[in-house]
Amino acid sequence: MTFTELPVERANRLINHGPTVLVTSKYQEKANIMTAAWCMPASHKPPMVAVSIGLKRFSHELILQGKEFAINVPNSKLLKEMWCCGTKSGRTKDKFALCGLTPVVGKHIEAPLIGECLGAIECRLESNPLAGDHSIMVGEVLAVWAKPGVFEERLRVEKEEAQTLHHLGGKDFCVPGKIVTI
Amino acid sequence: MTFTELPVERANRLINHGPTVLVTSKYQEKANIMTAAWCMPASHKPPMVAVSIGLKRFSHELILQGKEFAINVPNSKLLKEMWCCGTKSGRTKDKFALCGLTPVVGKHIEAPLIGECLGAIECRLESNPLAGDHSIMVGEVLAVWAKPGVFEERLRVEKEEAQTLHHLGGKDFCVPGKIVTI
Repeated sequence: MTFTELPVERANRLINHGPTVLVTSKYQEKANIMTAAWCMPASHKPPMVAVSIGLKRFSHELILQGKEFAINVPNSKLLKEMWCCGTKSGRTKDKFALCGLTPVVGKHIEAPLIGECLGAIECRLESNPLAGDHSIMVGEVLAVWAKPGVFEERLRVEKEEAQTLHHLGGKDFCVPGKIVTI
Repeated sequence: MTFTELPVERANRLINHGPTVLVTSKYQEKANIMTAAWCMPASHKPPMVAVSIGLKRFSHELILQGKEFAINVPNSKLLKEMWCCGTKSGRTKDKFALCGLTPVVGKHIEAPLIGECLGAIECRLESNPLAGDHSIMVGEVLAVWAKPGVFEERLRVEKEEAQTLHHLGGKDFCVPGKIVTI
């Protein structure tokens, strides 16, 4: 199934509620995926997002070299694939093949998007401030994508295909439950 | 009810699943609270957290002046109070009184913690890199607190008192639903 493009201002609403995401990166012929729970929107104008990535990660290298990345949002059906991306290294293996995910060509960046995810945010690396043993990769949003039906003003987490995964710690995740409206 | 202290290494597990938080700050006699959905852990060693705060917010001023802040995690019973903190300015009014929240003295910082919250993270401002129209306030974790019963290895979001709020956009939030274990 293909993605539908959303306005860049809506990138924040794919990740505003704190889902665990899959970060894709590419430099020359090498592409990678990593799982990241530490991700947030960072700016409205221009739209930016931030993801904290360990200094020793292969994706850290690729993002600094390629100067771009994508934030892909998996749904709960991708639990095993997400766990695979978070526990294996892509330094010597192709993570797409290893974890059974499909690379999809983006509009603005070389790094592939993940076809199975419910949405994706294409980013140009804007800055990479250090925070302890991680770098905060700050990306300016270039394009935003969502599968048909999962996004209408906000992510429709009440639908099964838009049930995001939220890492509590260890092997435990939660998915969104009740919607509460003020 | 009083807080129990957790190891600083566990700060990440209060916010790892992406809840909307209340950020408290103080400089001289002026304390404030603001609601922030844009918050994440940032480093393991040393433990750090990051929260993205708009350049024009009063809390932005107070955090830069006081060089410290606290991340407080509300549960779903605090929906109205959290909304109040996110829609009113504390520049001319005391937000604790205005929104009906109780300041609690922390261990390491002058900024008060919020007594009604399920947990809190005391931070020293480590850096404040710019990201578009926001600053990413990066804090080194000095102390971590949780109400008895809400935290055991991870946040027990299946308990009513540990049901966090996750901002989807507009007036819509979700609370954690099913636990999924890999």
